Amino acid sequence: LRVDLYPFASAIPDHQDLKGKVAVVIDVLRATTTILTALTNGADTVVPVLSPEEAFQVQGDNPERQFILGGERQSVLIPGFHLSNSPLEYTSARVGGRSVLFTTTNGTRAIRAAAGADQVLIASFLNAPAVALELLRLGQDVAICCAGTNDQFALEDGGCAGAILDYMSGPETSLVLNDLAYTVREIYRQFDRKVANLIYTAEHGQRLLTMGLQEDLLLCSQLGTTRTIPRYHEGQISR
Amino acid sequence: LRVDLYPFASAIPDHQDLKGKVAVVIDVLRATTTILTALTNGADTVVPVLSPEEAFQVQGDNPERQFILGGERQSVLIPGFHLSNSPLEYTSARVGGRSVLFTTTNGTRAIRAAAGADQVLIASFLNAPAVALELLRLGQDVAICCAGTNDQFALEDGGCAGAILDYMSGPETSLVLNDLAYTVREIYRQFDRKVANLIYTAEHGQRLLTMGLQEDLLLCSQLGTTRTIPRYHEGQISR
Repeated sequence: LRVDLYPFASAIPDHQDLKGKVAVVIDVLRATTTILTALTNGADTVVPVLSPEEAFQVQGDNPERQFILGGERQSVLIPGFHLSNSPLEYTSARVGGRSVLFTTTNGTRAIRAAAGADQVLIASFLNAPAVALELLRLGQDVAICCAGTNDQFALEDGGCAGAILDYMSGPETSLVLNDLAYTVREIYRQFDRKVANLIYTAEHGQRLLTMGLQEDLLLCSQLGTTRTIPRYHEGQISR
Repeated sequence: LRVDLYPFASAIPDHQDLKGKVAVVIDVLRATTTILTALTNGADTVVPVLSPEEAFQVQGDNPERQFILGGERQSVLIPGFHLSNSPLEYTSARVGGRSVLFTTTNGTRAIRAAAGADQVLIASFLNAPAVALELLRLGQDVAICCAGTNDQFALEDGGCAGAILDYMSGPETSLVLNDLAYTVREIYRQFDRKVANLIYTAEHGQRLLTMGLQEDLLLCSQLGTTRTIPRYHEGQISR
């Protein structure tokens, strides 16, 4: 079982090079944590779009679907949107039974870039153990596609990939890792599974802290609180 | 003092974004190790070019300079070239007093990409401690530009960056690191300064081993054997 890790959206291989593989998309702070939270709180689907304009367009074309509009630019609410990119806002009361049009700076770009894979799983620390088990069950080669931050490696995404790889590793599994996958598994282990420490060390974690988003960081650093694995298929993400 | 690490040549920022910074280019296996070895063995200059065609062109335009042609494609000697990319070939007898036209798959691309910085230093494990001291002396922000392998992070380049950062770190220096710089310093420390272990763990190290290039790996994993710091300036590298 070979696992290749890509550090940010623009480093993800072309669609045809992902054929035959399972992709795992990670944007811990906060897109994939928020998508997972929306779906576990009963949202019907999450539709990732690349821009606010695309969201308004899809909303206008499908008024009957009564979309919730969610996401961020510069980490804050987009004018005209209902919800920001904070997982805390995606409560059952707000998203239960609804579809969410969702756009973020890095996360939704990574999801769309990964779309060439046979399956596209959405991961965060919340479902990392479940994703690891599913990858072992599927038994196909894996492309872990981290969103990163503005075309740079983000420690929180790498750390989450490291957590998945740590859960996958064992005497009965033979993993072949690219150098970055190897590196992040070591880093995760070095933090001794203290995910909050890892997230607080990350540059983007620090940035969100200075914006007063401490509660978000705490939620995003929960490890293994759900077995739900969202999948992206034909333009939308569902359970 | 801020240090940003970039994992491969195409991730290096545009020339204008490197202004005011010192760039350090690293391609441990084997371009920067070979360049350093050529210069410590008395080569006059090393001229990095992007392709074999460019090398033949420059050679043809300047017959009086009697260039040595060196480098690789797919890790082996280029047809019509004098030397491959093995540092072992760059002996005093062969390169003393001569200029070398040099092209490799990733390393020379990274050097040219870094050219927008105020200074461009060439680093490998052989001069890592000296480079660290020089960066502290200069006191400018640093962009560490790893060559990587075919647009992917390479553990040996990251490990060498980690070594430089480890030597720079201390109670009297205050370093601000991007997430990848933080990560590689931790990885280097985890290998407990056993550079050969780190290089043997790297995918590209394994690949060169299967080609019988064990002696190259051993040379490339020597730590701090020279205080020479090659600089790239106006198209050529010299001491």
